[in-house]
This record gives sequence, structure tokens and C-alpha cells, in this order.
Amino acid sequence: MRDIAVFTGSAHPELAAEICEQLGVPLLPTKTSRFANDCIEVQLQGNCRERDVFLIQPLVPPVQENLVELLFMLDAARGASAGRITVVLPHYAYARSDKKDAPRISIGGRLVADLLQTAGAHRILAMTLHSPQVHGFFSVPVDHLHALRELAHHFRGYDLSNTVVVSPDLGNAKEAAAFARMLDIEVAAGAKQRFADDKVVISSVIGEVADRDVIVLDDEIAKGSTVFELLDRLRERHVRSVRVACTHGLFTAGAVARLSAEKDIEEIVCTNTVPIPAGTRTDKLTVLSVAPALAEAMRRIHNGESVSALFA
Amino acid sequence: MRDIAVFTGSAHPELAAEICEQLGVPLLPTKTSRFANDCIEVQLQGNCRERDVFLIQPLVPPVQENLVELLFMLDAARGASAGRITVVLPHYAYARSDKKDAPRISIGGRLVADLLQTAGAHRILAMTLHSPQVHGFFSVPVDHLHALRELAHHFRGYDLSNTVVVSPDLGNAKEAAAFARMLDIEVAAGAKQRFADDKVVISSVIGEVADRDVIVLDDEIAKGSTVFELLDRLRERHVRSVRVACTHGLFTAGAVARLSAEKDIEEIVCTNTVPIPAGTRTDKLTVLSVAPALAEAMRRIHNGESVSALFA
Amino acid sequence: MRDIAVFTGSAHPELAAEICEQLGVPLLPTKTSRFANDCIEVQLQGNCRERDVFLIQPLVPPVQENLVELLFMLDAARGASAGRITVVLPHYAYARSDKKDAPRISIGGRLVADLLQTAGAHRILAMTLHSPQVHGFFSVPVDHLHALRELAHHFRGYDLSNTVVVSPDLGNAKEAAAFARMLDIEVAAGAKQRFADDKVVISSVIGEVADRDVIVLDDEIAKGSTVFELLDRLRERHVRSVRVACTHGLFTAGAVARLSAEKDIEEIVCTNTVPIPAGTRTDKLTVLSVAPALAEAMRRIHNGESVSALFA
Amino acid sequence: MRDIAVFTGSAHPELAAEICEQLGVPLLPTKTSRFANDCIEVQLQGNCRERDVFLIQPLVPPVQENLVELLFMLDAARGASAGRITVVLPHYAYARSDKKDAPRISIGGRLVADLLQTAGAHRILAMTLHSPQVHGFFSVPVDHLHALRELAHHFRGYDLSNTVVVSPDLGNAKEAAAFARMLDIEVAAGAKQRFADDKVVISSVIGEVADRDVIVLDDEIAKGSTVFELLDRLRERHVRSVRVACTHGLFTAGAVARLSAEKDIEEIVCTNTVPIPAGTRTDKLTVLSVAPALAEAMRRIHNGESVSALFA
Amino acid sequence: MRDIAVFTGSAHPELAAEICEQLGVPLLPTKTSRFANDCIEVQLQGNCRERDVFLIQPLVPPVQENLVELLFMLDAARGASAGRITVVLPHYAYARSDKKDAPRISIGGRLVADLLQTAGAHRILAMTLHSPQVHGFFSVPVDHLHALRELAHHFRGYDLSNTVVVSPDLGNAKEAAAFARMLDIEVAAGAKQRFADDKVVISSVIGEVADRDVIVLDDEIAKGSTVFELLDRLRERHVRSVRVACTHGLFTAGAVARLSAEKDIEEIVCTNTVPIPAGTRTDKLTVLSVAPALAEAMRRIHNGESVSALFA
Amino acid sequence: MRDIAVFTGSAHPELAAEICEQLGVPLLPTKTSRFANDCIEVQLQGNCRERDVFLIQPLVPPVQENLVELLFMLDAARGASAGRITVVLPHYAYARSDKKDAPRISIGGRLVADLLQTAGAHRILAMTLHSPQVHGFFSVPVDHLHALRELAHHFRGYDLSNTVVVSPDLGNAKEAAAFARMLDIEVAAGAKQRFADDKVVISSVIGEVADRDVIVLDDEIAKGSTVFELLDRLRERHVRSVRVACTHGLFTAGAVARLSAEKDIEEIVCTNTVPIPAGTRTDKLTVLSVAPALAEAMRRIHNGESVSALFA
Repeated sequence: MRDIAVFTGSAHPELAAEICEQLGVPLLPTKTSRFANDCIEVQLQGNCRERDVFLIQPLVPPVQENLVELLFMLDAARGASAGRITVVLPHYAYARSDKKDAPRISIGGRLVADLLQTAGAHRILAMTLHSPQVHGFFSVPVDHLHALRELAHHFRGYDLSNTVVVSPDLGNAKEAAAFARMLDIEVAAGAKQRFADDKVVISSVIGEVADRDVIVLDDEIAKGSTVFELLDRLRERHVRSVRVACTHGLFTAGAVARLSAEKDIEEIVCTNTVPIPAGTRTDKLTVLSVAPALAEAMRRIHNGESVSALFA
Repeated sequence: MRDIAVFTGSAHPELAAEICEQLGVPLLPTKTSRFANDCIEVQLQGNCRERDVFLIQPLVPPVQENLVELLFMLDAARGASAGRITVVLPHYAYARSDKKDAPRISIGGRLVADLLQTAGAHRILAMTLHSPQVHGFFSVPVDHLHALRELAHHFRGYDLSNTVVVSPDLGNAKEAAAFARMLDIEVAAGAKQRFADDKVVISSVIGEVADRDVIVLDDEIAKGSTVFELLDRLRERHVRSVRVACTHGLFTAGAVARLSAEKDIEEIVCTNTVPIPAGTRTDKLTVLSVAPALAEAMRRIHNGESVSALFA
Repeated sequence: MRDIAVFTGSAHPELAAEICEQLGVPLLPTKTSRFANDCIEVQLQGNCRERDVFLIQPLVPPVQENLVELLFMLDAARGASAGRITVVLPHYAYARSDKKDAPRISIGGRLVADLLQTAGAHRILAMTLHSPQVHGFFSVPVDHLHALRELAHHFRGYDLSNTVVVSPDLGNAKEAAAFARMLDIEVAAGAKQRFADDKVVISSVIGEVADRDVIVLDDEIAKGSTVFELLDRLRERHVRSVRVACTHGLFTAGAVARLSAEKDIEEIVCTNTVPIPAGTRTDKLTVLSVAPALAEAMRRIHNGESVSALFA
Repeated sequence: MRDIAVFTGSAHPELAAEICEQLGVPLLPTKTSRFANDCIEVQLQGNCRERDVFLIQPLVPPVQENLVELLFMLDAARGASAGRITVVLPHYAYARSDKKDAPRISIGGRLVADLLQTAGAHRILAMTLHSPQVHGFFSVPVDHLHALRELAHHFRGYDLSNTVVVSPDLGNAKEAAAFARMLDIEVAAGAKQRFADDKVVISSVIGEVADRDVIVLDDEIAKGSTVFELLDRLRERHVRSVRVACTHGLFTAGAVARLSAEKDIEEIVCTNTVPIPAGTRTDKLTVLSVAPALAEAMRRIHNGESVSALFA
Repeated sequence: MRDIAVFTGSAHPELAAEICEQLGVPLLPTKTSRFANDCIEVQLQGNCRERDVFLIQPLVPPVQENLVELLFMLDAARGASAGRITVVLPHYAYARSDKKDAPRISIGGRLVADLLQTAGAHRILAMTLHSPQVHGFFSVPVDHLHALRELAHHFRGYDLSNTVVVSPDLGNAKEAAAFARMLDIEVAAGAKQRFADDKVVISSVIGEVADRDVIVLDDEIAKGSTVFELLDRLRERHVRSVRVACTHGLFTAGAVARLSAEKDIEEIVCTNTVPIPAGTRTDKLTVLSVAPALAEAMRRIHNGESVSALFA
Repeated sequence: MRDIAVFTGSAHPELAAEICEQLGVPLLPTKTSRFANDCIEVQLQGNCRERDVFLIQPLVPPVQENLVELLFMLDAARGASAGRITVVLPHYAYARSDKKDAPRISIGGRLVADLLQTAGAHRILAMTLHSPQVHGFFSVPVDHLHALRELAHHFRGYDLSNTVVVSPDLGNAKEAAAFARMLDIEVAAGAKQRFADDKVVISSVIGEVADRDVIVLDDEIAKGSTVFELLDRLRERHVRSVRVACTHGLFTAGAVARLSAEKDIEEIVCTNTVPIPAGTRTDKLTVLSVAPALAEAMRRIHNGESVSALFA
């Protein structure tokens, strides 16, 4: 098959470098210039012609800058006659905008999927989409990996005999249930309630958690408000210990430090789908790498081998 | 604005007639012929030119026949120069095919949405889609109504002081929680577990149900297997009474009779989004009409008034 | 080139098996499940990734079921990253819906062509389309084979010195004329007349048929009404003998038995583009195989060789 | 409804003027300039914004010039914010290119239909398309009128008791049969045979013509070769008289004069869908106007009234 | 016609307010929320259904934020069933990215035009695009206004007997020439030369400028580097006085203050297509309003009147 | 990679032959037939299936005939299952129609780009487009070569110490400036002024030309009116000598002879992107070949090598 060409945008070059190391191919950079009027110009720094091009760019803050940069990378690759263009989206932030829960808003997850296709994406490699339905927002083929395997491997190192997985939200409880099955333990979930336009609280926890070791599992943690809210409910139920796990550790607003400061939180586990800012790490934080999984998927995509066979 | 023209396909002419009665407009029929080679031909029996055309067709069994009939109705309306074509989908059965949970399958909910657009749909009026994300599968505007209002209105007639809403499935628990809030009562949910390719059981119920009056709420009941499965778990938890509610009462394989035969099921409530075959009704079955809601939405769509304002 | 992968749907697995035997490749099955709500799910049982995928599915009864199954197969193959997808349509039943001969109907042959493309078809391999114009309904490349070669080869075994080919319909007479030229004999045609919406009779036969051996040629025979109608006119003209030939032998409503019961019909010849139900065959029926022709066309499509060169 | 705006291109301004007179609206001209490099620029000479725009342009010689002019008119109308654009195609010459009867050729009738849509056509008003299937080549709504009504009205003025309609070609015989039914007379047809790549002869006439008054009916007459060929066969069968009728009288290469010079041809009847060059008319030529029919169809399209109701 | 509904994004609400005041319609705001993960959600604060919707948003810094906000506004309006959506782009910053002057870059002006259409734009109202060819990047109708009329009106107040218009760049000289003709004066132009990848200087001025009063005209001034560069060349040619004029006064990096500090610059004139930050204005700065022109164009678009008639 | 297949249309077979000679591949002809009704049929005379097809056709007079022929070639190649189709456009005449400088006209350069894509073009190889923005009119990848290299190589043979390049038009001056830099000489430009709708004159020349040797550079010369107009201005400025250079030497209306008749024009230099009619050449005319450049670009496109690397 045609040669592979892997480019990274500005969003997360460290992950891209680690993936390329796994693949044994050079990481090709993108030169993003900014004009005086704030418009950007993106130049791919390597030949694309008839290549099997992969563009690695998670949609992490600044999301809009990174999104537009990715759209320009796509168009540049297409205009440069790339043979095939795969967007590697370790974190698709707009997947959370997956429904129209207010009038006259956009379903962002669908719109951005369409924009990526307009700009030239032939296929998508995504990781832990907020809901499995988001797969259907894309008109192009999607390979959807989950980091549950990496997270489960980590927790198998502990004594789980008294442990229960807790999803902060009923809507996400299915994934927590799958995770619990991988660890052969039970599952519980918080029930959210909306009081006003901007105020959501977890009113109760359904399932047994009293006197148990708890693993709180969410797909993404940003400010951590939901986790803190859940923590209050768990304490009321007298849980024994808490570990927090997620795929996408955005940790904005000093979330790592604030979570680490909670005595009954013993560990915070995430993956490197998004960059962890230097200086924000604490002793309680464990970061697992998804680079091997993404690299293996890219290798299989490039070689025309089954991806589902591996990650099923 | 241009005149309204409402057509019904073969799927559910009774509902279409009731909607037209509400709207005070004639119901225009569709003449569906079948050739010797089993191909169908669909003729709309009324002038479409520049009209504001509504095609009412829930995707009920035989689903494939009804789907292809609908696609032909759409194309016929477009070819006949309809001004605008709205598909009224009281039941969008393929909404349940909303994710790719096995390799090399289609996400049917997205595919059928695309087919409807290819055939000429300008907009969709849907009711109680299986998951809110399905809204994002459509490239055309969707007005998405919920029958929870009708169901809640019915149950408000009862003493609910000891009642809890139970969702058979964590994945659908969010809607049950919304319903519970409308009735100002609590919510619980079953946790499904998949043992083999074709065997799913509800392993546990998370939330308090012992000695409570239970309203089991699901979006759609077909054979009722999930409800029967949940019923076993509820009995183990010694619930006091059970009422079963759903929007889409498909009730295949004699489900109404079998559910009615269960002594601790006091009532089965559904709406008329799908036709209830004559002779299958029992005393325990209550069917609520969504015709007023659909008619009002159609009136507002036709007049360019806000739909969200009414049904929010 | 990339590997070939041949899948069959439910419509005609025997023909698919025969084609694969000719090609010397395994036939990959499709697993079609049906949910309680009558929706189907289609899983392709073999790796598609970057493969040169062929999906064999004639649109035979139940046409709507087979059509929707094919659309789901297409979407599944696309979502599974097939390199190229060719639909093999040994019988495209909707080709007969090729014009708008009544107001407010769909031109089904065009609509279904568009649906196949929406679902993911990259190219079509068809056989004996009802009219040559149907080729132009497709937006993707079509290889259009004719079974006249197979039929002519069969009839060359007879003494044709007193034989004339008769088309039941002037509209299809061009193909009959081509067939007559292949056999170096003359051609005649019936003239249909429409009396009412649902009543068509053959009013006359134009051309010489008296005291001749007749080969009635049509592209498709379903209930056989047209043939029986023509038979009356031919008898009035005192033809000597009748053989009936067609490509697509649907033979619904016991047509084989009813045709065989006619004493002056000596033989009924068709091909296996559509399945002949077990138990409906009679001694007068001869079924020719198009598997070698379709297999050779598929081999050439896969290898990038000229198809027209062979079948011109 | 928005105002109507009717433009004509260079192909047939006389017909456009006659249509506008019937409609009682001004005919808006198109200014077509030609640059030194032979590129054209087309300016619509009248406000299009939000108007119901009709562009009248039959595809007559020089066909390519007229086609490109029409494409530029369409794009100009779209760019000028026309509310709706209907192409009035009294003669769609490329309709004859309706099948792929040689390898590696284009199906021109489909390609040009796609080009018209790309350039901005919202709908088509066509007259006597070469085959009814061509309707299905268009992705936009088509109103397809036939001039048979006008032709039949003309011939009803004669004694038709001994008359037969003859189609020069079996492929077109269906339309001749329809015409014969309108006049309540019989039909016959010539059978063409292709001897070499560029040589086609009519080998025989099927049906009774001896000692009869013949009306030869074709959709289009250009050089008239087919008519002359048929004339030889008809003379061999000793027909009594011949009248020639067609919708599209292109009459290239002096065809009117050459046909008129034949003694046994009593009359040549055509319509004004294409312009008859000044100085080429003879006493035997009768030209019927389709302007009233096209104008009435345009009026109905503009007003949203049924077109099929009138012309069925 | 349907009602007008005018929304503003975050980019330039002052201009939007001024336009609405001119139009006598209320300005409808957009509520843009930002989630913890930096994704935005945009809600249009007013009914869009069947309305003639205008979205006002110049692409000014922060360009990427404003662009994505605009895309979400478009999708929201479409999903909310807007009758027609016009994007009012007083400044289309990406118009400067109008060619591929380096390998493997995107032509941003075309890509962003496609993104706007994907998100739902039906038409564009733009002002002073960097080059007239950018009009052709859009697939939807564009009304392209120029602010030269406003600028010329301002300068006609001066004695222009000794004045010459100078374009800093030959590539933009055509617009300067048009401006000069409006004022009935002469034109000159700077010739840029590229020395290295990132270094461009104006090597010479072609045309007579010595001892003349100069109006430097550019479409957009950001940091002002080009103007300062030109100023050096003009001084070498001993010009008498300098006035600087542009449509889009971005004035980044303190450009207004730095230009005002130059003694021989007598005046800086721009329009309000982009917001002038409070506190950056100086006595030498004159800001002309384009709100009347944009409002009049919107009024005409809404009413279906000719826009070219006014602004030609 | 798949085999290359190069076809030529009717526009310029000599250039196509020279390119194929350079490439060492056979030139495959196109058989263009014309029916009696002036419609054309195009057959590609060589197998296209899965081939890397190149279609060579400059848009030279008769432009509309050549354009439609090219569109039919494209559709034929697509229908014949070409693997990839590249249009080689040595002269894209409609590139001059790159803006909307009058109301209700088409931007022809964009429309024709869209038509080429509709007909099946996957990519474009163009030479010296009238403006660099035209690149952005295409939705498919474009490789854009310039003939400046060939022209500069020719003029380097002369003593250029007293030479200046003059662009007849400010709008095209940027290319002249680039050419001047390649020769390390100065640049000047004519300033056009429009007096009436159809009257344009060059009012002045900006830059130093007195007593200089002048190279007039334009992208295309048709009738040569602009050059003659410029010549008058140059003589008024007392230039020493004039040479005329352009890429596309259309030379209509006897332009070569008329230019050659001017005594102070020493040489006319063009390339063979368009055919020079036999018998119109004079001693003063020098025609440079672009066949080596186009052939090398085609070789690189076919092999997936960088084109920008060579021609940058």
C-alpha cells in the first residue's frame, strides 16, 4: 500500500510523537502561521501526494483554535493530493453536544462531524466518544476505540473484592456497567436532577455503595464539579474509599489539585488522550498511555486489517 | 401560506384520520399497487403542487414494506412538485439501531434517516425517539415530541405517594428520571447484563423498590421480554403493585394478553403511535391518543409558529 | 489489487454459491437478524476492510425485504471500510418502473438507483435491464450484461428455418429484434392497448406469424398474463408451435405449471437470475445458468479488464 | 405568489415571444457577448430576485452553443437570487442519447440533465422527450408535455377511414400506437436493422399498410434519412398516400425541400418546438404551434395548479 | 413575505445594533455558553421558524472563536426551521487567503466559504472582499457591497486638485484605480518584492507622487506594516501630505496610535465593518458608518428588490 | 500503480502528441461523432478501466464545442470505470470570467469548474491561470503550472541591461513583477480606464519606460487590442524597442500578422498551450513548447511524486 504520513497539529504533539515512536515512522509537523488579522495559515511539512495521511488532533482547549487548525490541515492534505485522510481524534470534545435539549441550539457533535467531512476527512479514528450514538453522526467510516481496556488493566492490580463502580450519571451508566463487568464487580449510579437552567445536582445514588471501595468512572473530567457533587452523596452513604477514573482528563480550573486535596480520594487515573499541563500533576495522579492502542489501530487501518478483531 | 395536504400510507390510517379530524382537513389517501413481480407503485391521491405536504407513516410491522412505501411516497410528492414535504413519524422503529455494537453492521437509524432525505424529505416530525441522540442522525430539521406529557397526565389521576418509576435499562434511565420528576416521585433502574451473543438478563435493580407501587416505563414494548425479565426482579424485591407504561405499544407475539395474564400487573398504558390490532386488546390495556399533540405540532409547523414553545 | 470478498444476501444464495464456485473464492454469508419490532440488522460475516467487495442480491420477492437488506449490506460494507463496493443485481425488478405514466407516482427505477448510491454502492453489475435507458438512472458506473447470448446459444440447437421471434409488446420489440438477428430469423410484435386503468389487452400482432414456429421472448415473466394474452392472438393467427423464453423467470402464481399445461407451448426457457422455487419445475422448463457470465464479469471488474470487450 | 419573469436565450426567440404573448407577460431578453477568446458572457436583462424565473431554450443547432448559453443563464439566474428557476426545453435534443450502446461513451441525456441541475435548474418543462424513460434522468421535477394532442387535432380534419399510423422504428412504436388510438385507427412499424457501424436500414414493415393512407409519425426529423428509407419500404407495399408528422422538425440538410419533392408525400406536419429557417418552408409544410400548450403549463406551474390534470 | 429576524453574534454587536436601528427591527441576541471543556453552545434568542433570518458576524479577532460561533449560529437557525438564512459578513477576513502561494496549504477563503454552506448559509452579504474573485469561492448567492462610495463621499469634502491615490500593492491597484476615477484624480502603486520567505519590502512606487497630496488606499489595515513601508518610499519621493484610507480598520498592535504619531499623516479614515476598541481612537481617526448601506441591502434582499441597482 | 491512459480531444492533438512522446506512452484518440440534430457522441478509443486517465483539452475556439466534448469525455471515462481522471487544461479560457463585474451575469470560471466536477473530473492540471484565485474555484485538487520559467529561459538569451517588463494591466501586474524578478529587471504597468460599457483605454503607464527595451507580458493575447493600445502609450514615452510575450497565444483576427507588421515590435513569443493555425506564423513569432513541463507534471502526478517540488 501507499506510504503512511503522520502529521500533528498544535493540540497534543507529545501524544503524536509517542504514537509515531510506536509505529516507527517520523512525525511530520504542521507549520501554523497567524496573520496580523488573526487568520491562520496551515502548511503540512511533508509530501502528502498519494500518501495514507493521518492527522492527529484531539479537540482540547483552545477548542475552537484547534478545530479550525484541523479543518485547515484536512483541506491542505486534500489539496496536496493525499491518497486517503484519516483524522485521529483521541478526544472529540464536541461529542458531548449530542442532543438538542434546548430550542434553537445546534447539535454540535453532528455539525462538527459534517465540517470535518466538508474539509476532506475520509475516515475517523476516535477514542471513548461520550455516547455510542455519536458514531452515527459521522458520514464517513469511524473506528471507535475505548480506553476501558487500559483502565481495567490498571485496576486489576488492586484487591477489588469490596469494590463497586459508580457512574455519576444514569445516562452514562451503561459504560460503567461494561467496565464493572470487565472487573467482575458491581455497579451503581448517581441520579442527576436539574433545578434551574444552570443548576444540576445529584439527588441520589441508586445501588449499594455503603462501606464499599468505590471507583468513580466518567468519560471526561473537566472542572470536576460532577465528581465533587457525587463525592458528597457517597460520603453521606459512608463509602470506604474513592478512586476516580476517566479517559479524558482535561482537569481545568485546577481540578487535579482540588481532587487530590480531598483526603478520601486515594487516586485519580486518566489517560493521555489530552495533554496534562506541566506543573499540574500531583502524587495521586496516574496517567495511562493510549499511544500503543492508537498506534496499533493506525497500523491496522493502514494495512487493511480488521480493527474490530483487536479491540472487541 | 400554501395549502396543507396530508397523506397517509398503509401503516396506520386510523391515527392519520384522527389527526386530520383534529386539524379539520381532509385525509388524502395513497394508492399502493403491487405488480406481479412484487414491486410496488405508490400514487398520491391528491394535488401536491406547491402544497405543504405531510406524509404520516409510522415504521411499524411490516417495517420494510412500510419503509419502502414511505420512500416512494416521498419521491412521488417531490416529483409532483410539493412545496415542502414533512414526514410524520409517530414511531421511528429504526431509532433503536443507534450504535455499532458489533463489527460490520449498519447503524440503521442513521442509514434510514439518510434514505428519507434522498427520497425527498424536507423535515421530520417524530415522537419519543429511542435516544435523544437519534435527532442528530437527521440532516434535515426535526421536531421531536415526547408522549411523556400524555402518560404523566394519565398517571396523575392515581395516588402516587408510594410510587416509584422503574426503567428496565440503565441506558434509558434518563427518560424515566424525567418522567419521575414530572410526577414528583422517585426513580430506579434495572441493570442489564449480556451473557452471550443472544442472551441478555437483568441482573439487578438499582434503587429502592421494595414494598412500593411501581410504574415500569419503557419507550417501546414489542414482545415484552424485557418487562417480563424485570418483573421477576421486582417480585424478588417484593414490590406492591406494577403498572406498565410505554409510548410505542407494538405488542407482538400476544404481548398484551401475556402481560394482562400476570396478576400483579394492574394496568398496561400505551399511546396510539402504532396501531393496536383489533382483538388483541384486554381490559387492562389503556390506549392514550397522541393525535392532538401531533395535530397541534403540524398546525404550528404549517403556520411557522414555534413548536418548542408548546411542548417544552 | 486488493483481495476480493463476495457476500450474498437472502435473495438468491444458490446463484451466489454457483458464481463463487466459478470464481474459486469462498462465498461469505450475511447474518440477518430480525428484532421484535420487525427491524432488521445485517452483519457481513467476513472482513471487508480495503477489500474489493461484491454484494449479490437480485430484487426478487419479497422485494421490499430484499431491497432493505441490500441497503443495510451496503451501509455495513461502507462502515466496515470496504475498498470498493459493487452491487451484483442479476434481476433489478424496479427497472420496470422506468417512466411516469400516471400523475403523482414515483419513477421507482430511478429512486431505487439513488437509494443504492446513498447506502454506499460504488458500482453496479446488472443483467437484462427492462429497458436500456435504465442504465442512465444510475449515477455510478454500471456494467450491463444481457442473457440473450445464453438464450441464443440454447435455441441454436433447433431447426429455426421456419421460426419467428415474437415480442409481446412493441415497447420491448427492439430487444426481440436483436435476438432475432443473433439467430438470423425474423421478428414480429404484439400491440398492447389499454382499455381502462387496470385492463390491458394485446389487440393485434404486427408481422407474419401464420404457420410459423414462434419463440415468444420477454425480459421477465411473472404471472404470465401477457404471454397468455399473446398466446390467444397467436392461435388466432394459426401459429405452428410456441416456445417461451425470458431472462427473469419469476413465475409467480403457478405460472410454470399453467404455461406447461398449454399443449401448444413446447418449452419454457429462462435463466437462473431469480430462484425457481423447488417443486414448481415441470418437464417443459429449461433453466440456463448465468453464473459463468456474471463470474467472468466480476473477475474482469476485479482485475480492471474490459467488460465490454467480452460481452459486446 | 412571486412575480413571473420569462427569459429567452438565442435558440428560439420567436417561440418565446409567442409564449409570452399567450401569457400576457413581457419577454425578457438575454444579452450574450462573446470575448475575443470565444468565451461567452450571458447577462439576464431583467430583475430575477425572488422571481419565478422561466428560461426558454430548446437545444437546437448549434446545440453546444445553445447548451452552454443555457447553463450560463441558469447560473446567472441563481447568482441573481431567483426564487425558482424552471428550464423550458421545447426540444431536448440530447434525449436521443439515452443508452450506452457502445463501450466508453457517455449517456448524454443523463449527463446534460445533471449539468442543468449543477448550473441551477430547479425544474424542467419538456415536450415530447425521445423516450419516456428520459424523464427519470432528471433529479429535479419534470413536467413532460406531448404534442400528440396538437398533431391529432390537425389530422382529425381529414377522412381517416383508410388510414394507418406507421412508426419508422419499433423502439418508438408505443408513441405511434398512442397516437393511433387518439385517432381511432391502426398502427404499423418499420423494423430497423444495423448492418455496419454506420449503416442502418429498415428491413421490413410489420403490420398492414398495403393500399392504405399512411401517416408516418416520428418524434424528430433531422436529415430525414429514416423517413426516406421507410418511404421505399412503403412504396414496395403499395401504400396509397403518405403524410409525414413529427413534433420536432429540425429539417437539416434541406430536408423540407427534399421531402416536399417526393410526389407521394402529400403533407409534412410539425410543430414550432424548433425554429424553421426562413426560406426553407414549402407549400406542403404545416407548422402547428405549441406555444398555447407551453404557456398554459407555465401558467399552471406558476400558480401551483395541476399540470397533469390538463394534459393527461 | 415572511418576517425578518436579525441576530448578532459576539463579534460586533454595536454594528448589528446600528443596522437594526436603521431597519427599525429589534436586534435578537445570541446566547453563547462555554462548557468546562471549552466547547461552546450557541442559542438563538428568538423564534426562527419560517423567518427570513440574518446573522451578522464579521470575522474579526478572535477569528477562530467568531468563525465557529457563526457556524453554530447557522446550524441552530437551520435546525430551528429558518425559512432563509443570510450571513452578513461586514469583514470576511479569510478572503485574503485566496490563492495557493505555497505547497500544501489550504486556500482558506474557499474552505471557509464551503464550511459556511455546510453549516446552513443560503446566501451571503459581504463588504469589500480582498479580491473580486473571492465572490466565486461561494456556492451560494453573494451580494458584494463596496465601501468605496462611503470613502469617496468623505474625501470629496477636500480640495483634491493636487491629489493622487496610491495603492500599496500592484495586486490591489485595480480597486485604487476605481476609487481614483470616482474622485476624478490619478493613481499610483507600490511594487512589492519578496526577499525571503518572511520578508517583503516595497521596492519602488510606480507613477507620479512627488510633491503631491497622497491618499493611501488599502482594503484592510491590521498592524500597518505595509503602510509604514510605503510611507518610507513616499517620503523619498517627497510627497506633500498623506492621508490613509481603508475599509476594514483592524488596527492591531496599536496601529492607530503609531500611524497617528507620524507627523506627515494627516488623517486615517476607515469604516466600522470591524469594531474599533475603546481607548485606541485618536484625533486623526475618522470612522465612517457602513450600517446604512448594509441595512439598505438587507431591506432589499428581504423585499426581493434589486441590490445591484442601488450599489452599482 | 495502475497504468496510465492519455486521451486527447479535438482541441489540440498536436500538443497531446508531443506530451505523449515525452512520456513515452501512446496517445489514445477520442472519436467524436455528430448526429443530424447536431448532438455529439464521444467515444474514448482505449480501455479506461481502473486506469490513471488523463484527458488533454485546452479550452480554445470553438470553446463551447471543445468544452462540451471535454464534459462528454469525462463522463465516458467515469462510466468506463476509470480509476482516476485528471483533466489537463493547458489553457482554461474561462479563467478570465473570474468576477461578477456586472449584475445578473455568471462567474464563468467557477461554473465551468463545477461542470467539470459534475462530469467526473477528479483533478486538474492547469497552466497559467488568468488569476491565482481561479485555483480556488475548483473543488478538486489542482496542479497549477506557470510558463514563466519557459519564457524567462528564452529571454535570458538577450542583453537585458536596459530592459523593463511592462504589464498592460495593473490587475495582472503581479505576474509581470514575478517575471521581472526572474530576469532581475524592473517592472512597469499600464493603467486601464473604462469610458463606457464597451470602451476601455490605457490612460497611462506607471513606471519608467522611456528609452528602454520593453518586454510586454500578458497571460493571453487574442485580438491583441490591449497590446496595440499599450504600444501607443509606449511610443509616446519613446521606448527603444518592444518584444511581446504571452503564455496563451490565441492570435485571433490575424493578430500575429498585425503585430508583426509593427516595425518597433521585434519579436512575439508565446507557448504552444493553444494551437497556432498553420499559415498564420511569421518570422517574428517564436513558439516555446510547454510539452516537457506538462509531461513531467503528469509523470509526477501518476507516480505520486511532489509536483510543487519541481515547479516551485
